[in-house]
Amino acid sequence: MRYPYQNANLTIRERVADLLSRMSIQEKIGQVNQHLYGWESFTDEKRQEFTEKFKNHVEWGGGLGALYGLFRADPWSKVNYSNGVLAKDSWKVANRVQKYVIEHSRWQIPALIVEECPHGHQGLDGISYPTNIGRGNSFNTDLMQQSAQLMKQELALKGVNLALVSTLDLVKDPRWGRSEECFGEDPKLAAKMTEAIVAGFQEDLIQKDVNYLDQTVSLRENKAVGVVLKHCIAQGEALGGHNSGTVTIGMREYSDIYRPLLSSVKQAAGVMAAYNDVDGVPCHINQELLKTQLRQEVGFQGIVMADGVALDRLEDVFDSKATAAAAALKAGVDLSLWDQTYMQINEAIQEKLVDLKALDQAVAHVLGLKFLLGLFDDPYLEEPEQELTQVLKQSEELNLKVAQESITLVKNSGILPLNQTKKKIAVIGPNADNIYHLLGDYTAPQSSQRQQETIYQQIKQTFPNAQVTYAQGCEVRAVDSSYAQIEHAMALAKDADIIVVVLGGSSARNFDMEFLSNGAVSSKGINMDSGENVDVASLKLGGQQLSLLTALKQLKKPIISILIQGRPYELTTVQEVSDAVLIGWFPGQKGAQAIADTLSGNNNPSGRLSISYPLNSQQLPVYYYQRDASKQENYYDQPGAPLYSFGTGLSYTTFEYDNLQVKTAVDKIVITVNMKNNGVCAGQESTLLFAKLKGGHVIQRTKLLKAFQKNWLEPKQQQKLTFVLPKSEFEYMDIDHKIKQASKVTFMIDKLTIDIAW
Amino acid sequence: MRYPYQNANLTIRERVADLLSRMSIQEKIGQVNQHLYGWESFTDEKRQEFTEKFKNHVEWGGGLGALYGLFRADPWSKVNYSNGVLAKDSWKVANRVQKYVIEHSRWQIPALIVEECPHGHQGLDGISYPTNIGRGNSFNTDLMQQSAQLMKQELALKGVNLALVSTLDLVKDPRWGRSEECFGEDPKLAAKMTEAIVAGFQEDLIQKDVNYLDQTVSLRENKAVGVVLKHCIAQGEALGGHNSGTVTIGMREYSDIYRPLLSSVKQAAGVMAAYNDVDGVPCHINQELLKTQLRQEVGFQGIVMADGVALDRLEDVFDSKATAAAAALKAGVDLSLWDQTYMQINEAIQEKLVDLKALDQAVAHVLGLKFLLGLFDDPYLEEPEQELTQVLKQSEELNLKVAQESITLVKNSGILPLNQTKKKIAVIGPNADNIYHLLGDYTAPQSSQRQQETIYQQIKQTFPNAQVTYAQGCEVRAVDSSYAQIEHAMALAKDADIIVVVLGGSSARNFDMEFLSNGAVSSKGINMDSGENVDVASLKLGGQQLSLLTALKQLKKPIISILIQGRPYELTTVQEVSDAVLIGWFPGQKGAQAIADTLSGNNNPSGRLSISYPLNSQQLPVYYYQRDASKQENYYDQPGAPLYSFGTGLSYTTFEYDNLQVKTAVDKIVITVNMKNNGVCAGQESTLLFAKLKGGHVIQRTKLLKAFQKNWLEPKQQQKLTFVLPKSEFEYMDIDHKIKQASKVTFMIDKLTIDIAW
Repeated sequence: MRYPYQNANLTIRERVADLLSRMSIQEKIGQVNQHLYGWESFTDEKRQEFTEKFKNHVEWGGGLGALYGLFRADPWSKVNYSNGVLAKDSWKVANRVQKYVIEHSRWQIPALIVEECPHGHQGLDGISYPTNIGRGNSFNTDLMQQSAQLMKQELALKGVNLALVSTLDLVKDPRWGRSEECFGEDPKLAAKMTEAIVAGFQEDLIQKDVNYLDQTVSLRENKAVGVVLKHCIAQGEALGGHNSGTVTIGMREYSDIYRPLLSSVKQAAGVMAAYNDVDGVPCHINQELLKTQLRQEVGFQGIVMADGVALDRLEDVFDSKATAAAAALKAGVDLSLWDQTYMQINEAIQEKLVDLKALDQAVAHVLGLKFLLGLFDDPYLEEPEQELTQVLKQSEELNLKVAQESITLVKNSGILPLNQTKKKIAVIGPNADNIYHLLGDYTAPQSSQRQQETIYQQIKQTFPNAQVTYAQGCEVRAVDSSYAQIEHAMALAKDADIIVVVLGGSSARNFDMEFLSNGAVSSKGINMDSGENVDVASLKLGGQQLSLLTALKQLKKPIISILIQGRPYELTTVQEVSDAVLIGWFPGQKGAQAIADTLSGNNNPSGRLSISYPLNSQQLPVYYYQRDASKQENYYDQPGAPLYSFGTGLSYTTFEYDNLQVKTAVDKIVITVNMKNNGVCAGQESTLLFAKLKGGHVIQRTKLLKAFQKNWLEPKQQQKLTFVLPKSEFEYMDIDHKIKQASKVTFMIDKLTIDIAW
Repeated sequence: MRYPYQNANLTIRERVADLLSRMSIQEKIGQVNQHLYGWESFTDEKRQEFTEKFKNHVEWGGGLGALYGLFRADPWSKVNYSNGVLAKDSWKVANRVQKYVIEHSRWQIPALIVEECPHGHQGLDGISYPTNIGRGNSFNTDLMQQSAQLMKQELALKGVNLALVSTLDLVKDPRWGRSEECFGEDPKLAAKMTEAIVAGFQEDLIQKDVNYLDQTVSLRENKAVGVVLKHCIAQGEALGGHNSGTVTIGMREYSDIYRPLLSSVKQAAGVMAAYNDVDGVPCHINQELLKTQLRQEVGFQGIVMADGVALDRLEDVFDSKATAAAAALKAGVDLSLWDQTYMQINEAIQEKLVDLKALDQAVAHVLGLKFLLGLFDDPYLEEPEQELTQVLKQSEELNLKVAQESITLVKNSGILPLNQTKKKIAVIGPNADNIYHLLGDYTAPQSSQRQQETIYQQIKQTFPNAQVTYAQGCEVRAVDSSYAQIEHAMALAKDADIIVVVLGGSSARNFDMEFLSNGAVSSKGINMDSGENVDVASLKLGGQQLSLLTALKQLKKPIISILIQGRPYELTTVQEVSDAVLIGWFPGQKGAQAIADTLSGNNNPSGRLSISYPLNSQQLPVYYYQRDASKQENYYDQPGAPLYSFGTGLSYTTFEYDNLQVKTAVDKIVITVNMKNNGVCAGQESTLLFAKLKGGHVIQRTKLLKAFQKNWLEPKQQQKLTFVLPKSEFEYMDIDHKIKQASKVTFMIDKLTIDIAW
């Protein structure tokens, strides 16, 4: 140990300060750059030889701030099972990168190895969970935390230090292609899910009211992994649902909705700034957001990462990359992503556009995190041996449970559950026999074994006594003018007793597509109608899906419709012609089995819609927490209300509520209610507690979700539920832009309401 | 003359102060109430006997602040030619009201007689101009000012003191039923039109930089009429296009768009607050808006009027009407409209919710305006004799010109103009032979003579050598499942050489409809698909209009489509099947003739679209001045761009531009460009000057209209156009919420652009 910063007995603050004092400006700039695509680091498929690009970049920065996507496998990176790194070999590759970086850094500074993990690691052999919109329907934060813990173990054993996880976007306009990445439209739900993910990934890495800089590094048996939560903020309400479009909301809208959500990032290792502006100011140069709100008000201690090439997009706002770099540094962006802009920090400093202190602050955040994660003291991994296999197995098991709870039943004439049947089941539709269609965007190639786990295959296995047949019927979007596929499906279904139709959309990327420099798809596959950069104007089901469905209806058989989708599609016709409708969202690798389990009754569905499900895109927006203005609710030509309200979801049993009571104490509100399982089978129910506030010389929102819990009740079982909420839960921004606490509130659970003043 | 306030040699300030010092609280409250529906003032059709309701209300208030709608005639008021007041008799009725009010007021205070005049007076014999959206297409502020002057004369001769005129709403979401009341989406256009209207109605009633309180009353030969501009502010961007719905925009969006628009009200006698909130705060209790912005920043001196029953709608925000009244008084609402709330001001004062000063301020505004209008010194009218007839005749002539310039040609294969023809013309469609469909909302019943002036009739008259036939073809919305009307139209058109199809929507109210307490329609007629409270989700043409059109297309004849509408309808099919497409909007009483003149070439169309014309409602919003974010422009399933961009409009000639030059001076920018009429016929062209700003650490808007002018050019004529703009024209709100002036601007005229820095 030659220098104080290498002394593990010093606090992180002391070590950062010491190291920072020794570094050159160029070395500092190297630390705030995450410039490379990780898959371009090696010349060979065995990941032995570094590319000149990689070596030059390390030399340029006197080290490496962060390396993105070393293991990323997908059509954009062109990494797949033929040329990628298997999970079991990842640790070796990570070690190789760290060794090179440390040895080529004057101060032996390790790199952050950063991977996408929006619903599981986007690498080979990764466990791919339902996308967020489905998991939002589960309202189950325990499951979220457990799965995050398993993802963390998976990543840690692969040598990943930071996981990029979508948690902060709200789908206020489902035309947006990234709707699937949102837990739904609700800020409370998203906040609770965010906290569960942070807790699951990070455990006590950053503690609630402790500044980690004042601590020494705690090394763990399992390496720590930090989460970078994306995106900060309001990306889900760009005008027109256009990806990364402008957001026009005001301070009260921000404060009521995004402020409580933002407080959930407090203990996270990082947040990623959003592409969009809010009322004109790009999030990447928004000091009020990234410093005042995030660090001062929330108490966030992690790093702020730029989104991919987002800093380069500031060319509309600034004359030069150096000016843009200066503005982003000042605003609080600590680490770049792929952009050229942060490569120009030196110019910005030379031209006195920004002073060195701002750079030092960013470097300190990056170094602090590297210390905190133990990278300086313990940068290398050992072979995981059986541990990785076990983690993947556990994660896969949990994934089934998550998928089961993500599925939402919105119509059931009584046909479900099917129970065991000897009948003939025709499984039909473009999403019935394709695993990729179940997985959503940001997904790696799947093993050939995994590719067998389609809905059709799982129905066959789940109903061994039934005769299960399959026809595709049509494509998701492509049109077959000969109608041959529909005719084939009709012929097949003619003999069936029950028709299961699997419709929806797809975010599956193909290897022949082209991509933008930020990985968003540019040349889209014809059947890929959602995911990043794939916004739609109409929410109608694509291609010939409705023709297929209405043709099948002519057979006068019972129809069960299953929607596999990343955003809501119009269900008017589906609802009309189906005896049961299951919204499966993109249910992940175990989604097919979860759906089969739900059909059979092995799983009693408990999902509730985490969005207000629109009739169509012509009535948008319909999110439920709009201000309660005395408006014209309905249109001349259709209702103004959505098809299904937020929280809709059926079960195979029924739950009833009574005796809603509210007690107020000095600093908190205690709400109790009795619930009962009134049906004949056991089941879970997510109980949603809403509040409508009053006061502040503003029109308050119709209601806002304030708390939720999920309980399992046996038939006829009763349970008293208790919600304890701090009074700060009832804050809003008043006419003078002051944060106020309401003292008049209407509480709502199910159909029960109670007015309270305190 | 007993009291100083009666002395016309004193300043208005002195007279107001004197009168105010004498009045009781109840008399003051009486002055800020405009509670009655004017048509309920008399018991008899001859307007001789006042109702008890009227008399009681005058007694309650010790006088009368204002009387709304004494002459309003329409289905809501149930006033028509059988029971209403003819234009020529109005003066007598006005005198009768003033006499009663003055005699029943301790201080002989006259009432304000207030009438709707959004596109002409909504009274019997009123001249009904094109609705605003059409007049916006004219880009002709001179015509606007001239027509406002004639409307003012019409109203003055009827005894009206205040005209309610829509000028401030912007159609940012055309689902909104009141889109027709907007000049378009552009704030500069709306501001210039507003100024023209104020100048036309008020002449120098309120001078630019003079406080009228410091002046004495100038009596005029023609009585003065003040305009109350509505609505303040941002009503056209309620979420979902829902009438009076919530508006979520932030301060920068407000500042860039509505601040420049608001400055146009400076010399107006009044503004009306808007129903909506802006970012949570209802406009009616928004002191920042109504006092700081309007009075301090803009220098507005008039009264702020509430919208109809808007104050009663504050029940969502406050516990009692007294609390609501206090908040509105404090915020700066000077005069109520129909509500119960301002009747409770006494309670508010007794409960000390507001102090007397706030009431005094409102009363002072109302009294000041009454003095200014000369009502104290010269309250009664004389018989107008021939003057009214002459004014109506002049106005009617000007109305034709306005209608001609409001029409916008968006497609012409060369079929237009038709010139004189001996051919057979089939005129078909639900808007072809109905005057009411041409007039829009807020329109009075029409004389039987006027009812003859339909498009079909005018085409017959304009093409005397042609054989012109007519069939309705279908209804605007109602569906005839027998298709008999379509078949009849087909049979009729089979022999025609040219088919003129007149499609669109209708805001025509019927006498069998029901209305809300604010006059918005509640039980809609089946064919009435626009106007106040009639929002739509889909912009598709209603009923069987597209079936009719595509059926006619099968006849393989040339088709000219004319759209009569208050909002954009989808034109995809119309465009495809038509040889020419004319957007007529709701063109007013002379609209039919203007359309016939345009078909014949008597009028060379010069309208340009004052909105970005959407493909459909699924791509909304498409207004052109959104911030220029690096977004995904197109949807998977359709373009993101509108069908026609803002400013689209064809002529029978062509104009070309060159030599765009910009010169900067200390305080102004001078832009010049050469234009030439390159075609074979004379015509008018509205030249639009756009600017894109740069700076402020914000994403600036794609462009903003900064100036426009309209010129008439003979064939081959050239003209050099000059625009002189103050540098303050290039203001925007920066990252720190400061108003800044851009010093880098790109100027655009037609296809020419030039970058300038100063």
